[in-house]
Amino acid sequence: MSNKIRVTVWGEFRHEKRDEVVKKHYPDGMHQVIAKALGKNADMEIRTATLDEPEHGLTQEVVDSTDVFTWWGHCAHKDVSDEIVARVYKRVLEGAGLIVLHAGHFSKIFKKLMGTNCSLKWRVAGENKAGETERLWVIEPSHPIAEGLSEYIELPNTEMYGERFDIPTPEKLVFISWFEGGEVFRSGCTWERGHGRIFYFRPGHETFPIFHNPQIQKVLTNAVRWAKPRIIKEDVCPCSPEIEKVGPREFPQIQG
Amino acid sequence: MSNKIRVTVWGEFRHEKRDEVVKKHYPDGMHQVIAKALGKNADMEIRTATLDEPEHGLTQEVVDSTDVFTWWGHCAHKDVSDEIVARVYKRVLEGAGLIVLHAGHFSKIFKKLMGTNCSLKWRVAGENKAGETERLWVIEPSHPIAEGLSEYIELPNTEMYGERFDIPTPEKLVFISWFEGGEVFRSGCTWERGHGRIFYFRPGHETFPIFHNPQIQKVLTNAVRWAKPRIIKEDVCPCSPEIEKVGPREFPQIQG
Amino acid sequence: MSNKIRVTVWGEFRHEKRDEVVKKHYPDGMHQVIAKALGKNADMEIRTATLDEPEHGLTQEVVDSTDVFTWWGHCAHKDVSDEIVARVYKRVLEGAGLIVLHAGHFSKIFKKLMGTNCSLKWRVAGENKAGETERLWVIEPSHPIAEGLSEYIELPNTEMYGERFDIPTPEKLVFISWFEGGEVFRSGCTWERGHGRIFYFRPGHETFPIFHNPQIQKVLTNAVRWAKPRIIKEDVCPCSPEIEKVGPREFPQIQG
Amino acid sequence: MSNKIRVTVWGEFRHEKRDEVVKKHYPDGMHQVIAKALGKNADMEIRTATLDEPEHGLTQEVVDSTDVFTWWGHCAHKDVSDEIVARVYKRVLEGAGLIVLHAGHFSKIFKKLMGTNCSLKWRVAGENKAGETERLWVIEPSHPIAEGLSEYIELPNTEMYGERFDIPTPEKLVFISWFEGGEVFRSGCTWERGHGRIFYFRPGHETFPIFHNPQIQKVLTNAVRWAKPRIIKEDVCPCSPEIEKVGPREFPQIQG
Repeated sequence: MSNKIRVTVWGEFRHEKRDEVVKKHYPDGMHQVIAKALGKNADMEIRTATLDEPEHGLTQEVVDSTDVFTWWGHCAHKDVSDEIVARVYKRVLEGAGLIVLHAGHFSKIFKKLMGTNCSLKWRVAGENKAGETERLWVIEPSHPIAEGLSEYIELPNTEMYGERFDIPTPEKLVFISWFEGGEVFRSGCTWERGHGRIFYFRPGHETFPIFHNPQIQKVLTNAVRWAKPRIIKEDVCPCSPEIEKVGPREFPQIQG
Repeated sequence: MSNKIRVTVWGEFRHEKRDEVVKKHYPDGMHQVIAKALGKNADMEIRTATLDEPEHGLTQEVVDSTDVFTWWGHCAHKDVSDEIVARVYKRVLEGAGLIVLHAGHFSKIFKKLMGTNCSLKWRVAGENKAGETERLWVIEPSHPIAEGLSEYIELPNTEMYGERFDIPTPEKLVFISWFEGGEVFRSGCTWERGHGRIFYFRPGHETFPIFHNPQIQKVLTNAVRWAKPRIIKEDVCPCSPEIEKVGPREFPQIQG
Repeated sequence: MSNKIRVTVWGEFRHEKRDEVVKKHYPDGMHQVIAKALGKNADMEIRTATLDEPEHGLTQEVVDSTDVFTWWGHCAHKDVSDEIVARVYKRVLEGAGLIVLHAGHFSKIFKKLMGTNCSLKWRVAGENKAGETERLWVIEPSHPIAEGLSEYIELPNTEMYGERFDIPTPEKLVFISWFEGGEVFRSGCTWERGHGRIFYFRPGHETFPIFHNPQIQKVLTNAVRWAKPRIIKEDVCPCSPEIEKVGPREFPQIQG
Repeated sequence: MSNKIRVTVWGEFRHEKRDEVVKKHYPDGMHQVIAKALGKNADMEIRTATLDEPEHGLTQEVVDSTDVFTWWGHCAHKDVSDEIVARVYKRVLEGAGLIVLHAGHFSKIFKKLMGTNCSLKWRVAGENKAGETERLWVIEPSHPIAEGLSEYIELPNTEMYGERFDIPTPEKLVFISWFEGGEVFRSGCTWERGHGRIFYFRPGHETFPIFHNPQIQKVLTNAVRWAKPRIIKEDVCPCSPEIEKVGPREFPQIQG
C-alpha cells in the first residue's frame, strides 16, 4: 500500500472552455496545470475532478480516498450540489486537508467551514485589462507553507482582492499581499476544523497564467504537505457510562 | 429611542411541556426564567421567542431589532427551519451577539457559525438520576464575562459534558469545567464571526434548576453585555474602481 | 473619586530637543500633542512623563495610579532603567493597558511583554527625505479600536516599516499598512498579558506631524478606551489547602 | 552529517541529590531518565546538561548545536544565570524548540518567552503525602503531540497545579488536566516565539516517578518531533534601500 499523499485537484473547469484568454493559458483547464505541478512530487499521488463530471468527480469512493483536496471555482459555485459539499465537509472534519484557491473564497465548502460570508473587495481584471502587480509578503518564514520561498513572491499581473475579507481570525497568517492599486489582503491563511487543516491561498485569477508560476507551484506543494491528515477519525457524540452516586442530593435553594 | 440592549431569549420550550421534572423547575419554560433574570438589568430590553410560535418567534422584524440572542434547544434542533437559521446567521454576521446554551451546541445556528460538527461526550442525567457536581473554573478573571465571579462556580447536580468538544479553537476560553466523574470541558468559549460575537456556555441541563442559580444568571448578564453589537454592518463584495494603468504588460514567460 | 481613565503619556522627548525638523512639528514634545488630543475626551485624565525626569516620571505612585500607558521611544531605549520597566510590566500584568507607538516596538517594555525580538524592516525617512504614502487598512471594522474610522487612514508622508515583524501572532489584527514603496505591515495589533491589554500602533515617525492627524488621534482615543483595566489584580502562586486522602497508594510499576 | 534531531535535556539536578524520595525514583537525576527515554528514538541524538556544570552545561557551542531543549527546574531557578538564559532565548527565537516541564513554569527562560508571570495554584504533595490522581484529557487528538495516545493519560499520584495559570492564550491547548481534589489545569500548551516552537507540559513532580511512565515518555517524544526547527534564522532589523521619489510633498495641514 502506498504512503503517498493522495491529492484530488478539483476544478470548476468552465471559464477555460468559453473564454479565449483563459483557454490560452489553460487549454486543458487550470486543474491539469495544478495536477501536473503537484505530480512532480514523488510523495504525492494526484487525481483531478471537475464540476461537470458525474457527482462533480467527487464520488464517495474518491472522497474517502482523498488526503488533500485543492479547490478552484468561480462562476458556478451555485451549481455544486449541497450533497457533494456535505461529503467533502465530513471528510475534512475527519482529517483531510483542503486548499482553497482564489475565487474559491465564495465556494460553498469554504463558507461552510468558515461560518462567515467570506466577502472581500475586488477590482476587475480581465480580457483587455492588464491587471496589476501583487507582492505576497511572507509573514511567517518558518511556517511549512513558506518553506523555500524568499521574502516575497511578485506577480506582475493579477486581479486585486482587498480587505476587509470576512473570515474568522486565521490561526496563522502566512502571506499578506500588497497591490499596486493601494490595497492589502490576507492572502495565505490557515485554520483547523475538526481534525482537518484548511489553507486559503489568494492567487489564481483565470485570465493570468498564475498557476504556471514556479513559486506559486512551490506554495501549493508545501500546502499539500502541511495539510495532509494527521489522523482520520470521525467525531461522534458518545454517551459515557454512568457513574455510581451516593444518592440524590438536595437541589440548591431556588433564588430569583 | 432606547439605548438598551435588545435581547431575544429563544427557547425550544418542549421538554418543559412534557417532562414532569423539567416542568417542576420551569413551569413557564426555561426562556421565561432567563428572560426574567436578564430583565432585572436596567440596560436591557427582553423579548422571548419559542420554536412553536409562527416563524419560531423570529420574524424578520424581530431578528432585525435584536442586538443579542440567547439560544437553548435540545430535542428538536431538526424542527428549526433552515430559513430562520439563515436569518439569524445573517444578523450575527452583521454584528448581533449570540449566546448558545448547553444542548444548543448541536443547534443548526451554532454548527453553521462554527463550521464543525460540535460533538462532545456526555453522561445521562435525568429523571431519577442525581447528576454530578460540576465546577466551572474561571480561566480569564479579567474577561468581561467573568466580571464579579469568584474563582469558580460550583453546581451540585449537572449532566456531564466531556472533551473532546469538536469546535474551532476558541478565541478566549473563559471557563473550564471539572466534573465529579472525572471529565473536563471547555465550558465558556468565545468566537467572532463577521461582526458578531458568540459565546458558548455549557450549563443548563433541563432536569436541574441551573438557570435559577444567581451565578449562572450573572454570567448570562455579563455575556449579553459583552456580546452587544459594536457595529451593525452587512459585508458585501464591492467592486472597486479600476485604476489607470500605463499599459498592458508582458505576461511572464510560462514555465512548467 | 473620579471614574475617569487615568492615562500616563510617556515620551522619550529627546529627538524633539535636538532635531530641527522634529522640533518644528512638536516644539513641546510629541507627548504634549498626544496628551492634548487625549485630554479632549471627558472620560480621561491625562498626565505626561518623560525619560529625563527622575525615575523617568514613572514613580511607584504614578505607575500605581495609571490605568493606561502610552509609550513612544526611539533613540534611547537603552537609557530606560530595568527597574522602571519592571514596575510598568508588573502594572500591566495586573491589568493596566499599554499602547506602544511606532519605534516603541524596540522598547524594553514591549520586548519584555512580547517575548520576541520585535525586529522589522524599515526605510530611512528623515530631514531631507519626503517619506512615502501609507494606507492603514481597517481589517476589523467592528473592533472598538476602529470605531468611527472609514475603510482606511491615509498618511501622505511616513517612514516605512515592513514585514517580517517579529511578534507573537496577534490576537486581533486591526490594521494592515500598505506602503507606496511596495511593503506591507501589521500596523495595529492587540495582545493580552496577565490581566492587561496591549496595543501596538505603527504610525508616529518623529519627522512627520503624524500625531497631529485627527484620525490618528481618534485611534489613540479608541485604544485608550479599549485598553482600560477590566480588573486590577496581582496573580500570585497560592498554595491550596491539602485534601484528605484515603491513604497512600501504590506507585505504578516503573517501566522503562 | 547527521539529520537527527539534536536534543539537549536540561535538568536542575538538585532535588535528586538531597531528597531521599526523589533519589529513589531518579538516582541519576530526572534528566537521565528523560534522556534515556528519548534516546530510544532513532531520529534523535541526546545530550544532557545540568545547572551545576560550567555554564550550566549550556556553552555557546552546545546551544548552537541544539535543535530542541527540554527544561526541568524547580528550587533553583534563581541560580540560572541571565546570560545563559539570554543565549537559550536567542536560539529559540532563531528556530530551536523548547519543552518546559512541570515546575519549569517558573523558570527564567519560560517567563522571558511568555511575557507573563506564569503563576498558578498548587497543593503540596511530598515525602509523606500521597498526591492525587490526575487525568490529562486529550483536547486535540489530531495534534502531533497527541499522536498515539488514547483519550486521556491517567497518573495515580501527582502534585496538583490549578488555574488560573498566568500565560498568554495558548495557540493550541493539547491537554487539560482533571485533578481528584477538584481543580483543572491547561496542562499541554503550545506557542511560537520568533521561529521557535514552545511546549509546556505539566506532569513531572519530583516525588513521583512520572518520567518513567511510558505515556509521558511518548508525549516527550512527540513534542521533540513537533518542536524541531523548521528554519534556523536570526531576525535582524534591516534597513531597506531608499525608493526614488518624485519630490518632496506638502505636509498635510496641521490640525489640532
